[in-house]
Amino acid sequence: MVRLKLTLAYHGENFHGWQAQDGAQGARTVQTEVERAAARLLGRPGDVIRVHGAGRTDAGVHATGQAAHLDAPASKADLPWRRGLNALLPTDVAVVRAEIAPAGFHARFSATSKIYAYSLWLDREYVLPQRRPFVWPTGPLDLDRLDEAAALFTGEHDFSAFQNVGTPVRSPVRRLFAVWREPGQRPEETVLRFHADGFLKQMARNIVGCLVGVGLGKLGPEAAARLLAGGARAQAPATAPARGLSLERVFYGDEADRLVPTWPPEVSP
Amino acid sequence: MVRLKLTLAYHGENFHGWQAQDGAQGARTVQTEVERAAARLLGRPGDVIRVHGAGRTDAGVHATGQAAHLDAPASKADLPWRRGLNALLPTDVAVVRAEIAPAGFHARFSATSKIYAYSLWLDREYVLPQRRPFVWPTGPLDLDRLDEAAALFTGEHDFSAFQNVGTPVRSPVRRLFAVWREPGQRPEETVLRFHADGFLKQMARNIVGCLVGVGLGKLGPEAAARLLAGGARAQAPATAPARGLSLERVFYGDEADRLVPTWPPEVSP
Repeated sequence: MVRLKLTLAYHGENFHGWQAQDGAQGARTVQTEVERAAARLLGRPGDVIRVHGAGRTDAGVHATGQAAHLDAPASKADLPWRRGLNALLPTDVAVVRAEIAPAGFHARFSATSKIYAYSLWLDREYVLPQRRPFVWPTGPLDLDRLDEAAALFTGEHDFSAFQNVGTPVRSPVRRLFAVWREPGQRPEETVLRFHADGFLKQMARNIVGCLVGVGLGKLGPEAAARLLAGGARAQAPATAPARGLSLERVFYGDEADRLVPTWPPEVSP
Repeated sequence: MVRLKLTLAYHGENFHGWQAQDGAQGARTVQTEVERAAARLLGRPGDVIRVHGAGRTDAGVHATGQAAHLDAPASKADLPWRRGLNALLPTDVAVVRAEIAPAGFHARFSATSKIYAYSLWLDREYVLPQRRPFVWPTGPLDLDRLDEAAALFTGEHDFSAFQNVGTPVRSPVRRLFAVWREPGQRPEETVLRFHADGFLKQMARNIVGCLVGVGLGKLGPEAAARLLAGGARAQAPATAPARGLSLERVFYGDEADRLVPTWPPEVSP
């Protein structure tokens, strides 16, 4: 057996998220597409070649750096995995890199941290059509207030108020190493990035919903602080739309530490 | 009468180009969509409100800064043009700006120069799904050779060998003020920009086809020079695909000159 690590990019618009859905007929998922391509590349089109993803992105969420692994017979290690899978995959998902995984590697359990990016479109009256599938058009925001609130989220917190119901988790505590904002692809756009050791269900989108509420003047930074200090999900603002979110990077081992000299890391939206 | 200048952005994928096509049933064009929205905004949904564009972009070509004008009754000058048109337009075309045009303004005849951008995707084995509608995946190119050939195109030339058949023009001579290359949105991408006093039919795409031929090693820079010195279209490499091209900016009067201090101008792909 050889374990392969895949780095995947996808346009989330036409996917019901990452995760294969038992019994949900016609629900197209990224995982299913990659599994099907892998089975065909291995010459076993009827078999299930399980592909394990690092993060279960929601329906509509994009990725430029999702990570995943799969096991293949050792005799297949030298297949042209990247080229072969890309030739078999639909155009809205692509293998950015394919490599032999280190011993003991597991895409999900070995991941030490992830970066998600969320793009906000700040113009009230128009959205650039080319950017529409990738942004949340919020209109103008008070970005100083938004930044002030964003800073409250860094560090180790109980993110219960920013977790939607779903898969049960052992603990709602996560460490957010950094939240920062960078210019987007257009002057009308700004990108929030989150680097954390893990994300609860819809946590990034729920934090963005809260930060946009602050930026719109609907709630004060102190409200965000109260939610972090033990609020309930029902008290928090609504979840931000999926299309603004992209999983940009999954780190393993000390990869993130080694990026510190160039922090924030140079990753594209 | 009041003349309005519109700055338009569109995702060209689902348009048969800018120009309304007589008798071509079902051929969706940007011009027709804007004309329809203008007629509705003016409360005259059955009438034809002619919208004149600065450049007749081909089917599949994008724009972030197309310019256009239309005439409206003076009593309508204060309509919320930008917001109103955007509320009526489909999501793949948007009004970036709407303003009262200066006296004597004509979107096409007053234009003094334009910038087109062409995005090349240089990775051989994958294309980022998010960038697929906006790039030509050429694979790796010798960018030094490409730049060397690109420099030959600057200046005033007879661009006959880079003109496809179509609307007759008085002269095939155009002045290309500058051709330059900038980083794209991803490390795998590079963007060629062209600033000229005018573009013949598919001229930018034909120059790109030639430059990519040089970058791939299929022809030498001297071949490009020969084509410029009086070659025929039939001798030149094929036209580059439409989807890599975007009309970024149309200049009027001395607008371009005033940008010289920050040359190359800061425009996004």
